[in-house]
Amino acid sequence: MKKLINDVETVLAEGLDGFAAAHADIVLLGAERQFVRRRNTRPGKVALISGGGSGHEPLHAGFVGHGMLDAACPGQVFTSPTPDQMLAAAQSVENGAGVLFLVKNYSGDMMNFQMAAEMLDQENATVIVNDDVAVENSTYTTGRRGVAGTLIVEKIVGAAAERGDGLAALKALGDSVNKATASMGVALTSCTVPAAGKPTFQIGIDEMELGVGIHGEPGRKRVKLTSADDIAAELTGAILRDLSLKPGQEVLLLVNGFGGTPLLELYVMVHAARKVLQGAGVRVARHLTGSYVTSLEMAGCSITVSAVDAGGLALWDAPVHTAALRWGM
Amino acid sequence: MKKLINDVETVLAEGLDGFAAAHADIVLLGAERQFVRRRNTRPGKVALISGGGSGHEPLHAGFVGHGMLDAACPGQVFTSPTPDQMLAAAQSVENGAGVLFLVKNYSGDMMNFQMAAEMLDQENATVIVNDDVAVENSTYTTGRRGVAGTLIVEKIVGAAAERGDGLAALKALGDSVNKATASMGVALTSCTVPAAGKPTFQIGIDEMELGVGIHGEPGRKRVKLTSADDIAAELTGAILRDLSLKPGQEVLLLVNGFGGTPLLELYVMVHAARKVLQGAGVRVARHLTGSYVTSLEMAGCSITVSAVDAGGLALWDAPVHTAALRWGM
Repeated sequence: MKKLINDVETVLAEGLDGFAAAHADIVLLGAERQFVRRRNTRPGKVALISGGGSGHEPLHAGFVGHGMLDAACPGQVFTSPTPDQMLAAAQSVENGAGVLFLVKNYSGDMMNFQMAAEMLDQENATVIVNDDVAVENSTYTTGRRGVAGTLIVEKIVGAAAERGDGLAALKALGDSVNKATASMGVALTSCTVPAAGKPTFQIGIDEMELGVGIHGEPGRKRVKLTSADDIAAELTGAILRDLSLKPGQEVLLLVNGFGGTPLLELYVMVHAARKVLQGAGVRVARHLTGSYVTSLEMAGCSITVSAVDAGGLALWDAPVHTAALRWGM
Repeated sequence: MKKLINDVETVLAEGLDGFAAAHADIVLLGAERQFVRRRNTRPGKVALISGGGSGHEPLHAGFVGHGMLDAACPGQVFTSPTPDQMLAAAQSVENGAGVLFLVKNYSGDMMNFQMAAEMLDQENATVIVNDDVAVENSTYTTGRRGVAGTLIVEKIVGAAAERGDGLAALKALGDSVNKATASMGVALTSCTVPAAGKPTFQIGIDEMELGVGIHGEPGRKRVKLTSADDIAAELTGAILRDLSLKPGQEVLLLVNGFGGTPLLELYVMVHAARKVLQGAGVRVARHLTGSYVTSLEMAGCSITVSAVDAGGLALWDAPVHTAALRWGM
């Protein structure tokens, strides 16, 4: 295992300390590193809280700040945070307008966020993100997995919270964005969880895993590596079948690297995915390209398509100031 | 070779087409993909042009836009662009106030930018970036290599050009920022150039290359992989010896991933580098952390330290709107 770390026991703590120091203008680290929160919150604003296993950076802590999350709870690598973390985060950032939890659909996260929601002495609601069209049920999931589409839910709901929308409206918006968003990924290599010390899965030098999960969970099929165009056709095709978009529909296109794939290749995939979308008569209104929802150093990428109307587009374009996404301010 | 590409012959063209489509609000692609330029330029502003081999994305095309470059010329992977590309870029973006070329110190780039400068029928000057303290002379270089510090030169000089500074002042500022900036990197793995089809160099499973170049050039020594703290001490120590900073000096700290290293590890390195800098009495005024000057999918990182005064800090903080760096707008 080749990693820039001191010790597998301290990698998360040191990574969080480095993150908090580098972004001290935006975030504060909670006691015992239970959560990362915004430095400044606003009375009367619904608090948005997400979290999950670490190893997917910049998700979620990199999306804490104006226009997105109020707090994020980092679990150990690929391990759910605890209900105590979520409760502490909620108590730290709630501002009298309730708490909305944004949860990726993994059994551990679902159970722990539900416990936190029950323990919390504040009005609260939960949006479950399950954008991965690859498979129903998976290693850590009942139903569909939550993957890179989470970023889009966090951005759009975050902007609506910032303008002052109430808890019920934000919950409805989050559910609606999740429903309009679909993703599918491909892995060319495995990643290695520091505490495990060896690759999560084995894959041949000429193979790829189509429909892989962001923890290296099996996808739809293990096949020979093909061209970027073929891969984009497979991923984007599955997404389009799921979303049933009408010609002329405007979408956001997120081409997301898993951590070990060069940006040059991600832009080749953008080019390839655009051809498929154009062929379906779908118009890409906005792009986001980069490694935002990662699986440590896994090589591969996911494609996410999210149908948007003018209102959603305005929320996507609204100012955001986080470690990993920033525009308009 | 496992890559998300269609063909090694078309990877650059398709990557550029994807990039230009994804960032069409900011950039235009020149004829025959000779250069990436800003969509909008301003009469009377000095034109800043950089470029170099591809495979280091987002450098340089990702830094084209308001507050940074006017144009960037992409060569084939790890290969200098041609003088014709640079000349075409200069003719496209010059606005009556001259052209400043920002060139990383590699023999091919130096020769080709010099030829372009001689062919150009406009007032022009060149800033040579050579921030890598690892070695004197290298595989493709006489003197020191230009590496991730290039981003800092492009940002600070770009902001000064935006406020209206003239060619001579920008040339002097660029030289001064380059002199105040030092970098050193470490590789844990090699990368694979698509056209070569095999790793650039071989490295043992327990080894690292200290002082590696951004094309996989040999560094100072090949040693056993050690801890993040030890690596940060070695890299940052060499940088501090080069810069001879006084206690109390303010600096920018760039921890730059080479493409295959997870963000979590980069923040562990931020934490480690800060301890070394604090021990030397140096104050980190601003951080930038991420994979900005890459070597395709190489695992590893570089540390860059740049001494800044209040004027430099204001230029660093000035608004920028490019594909890869964006703040204040």
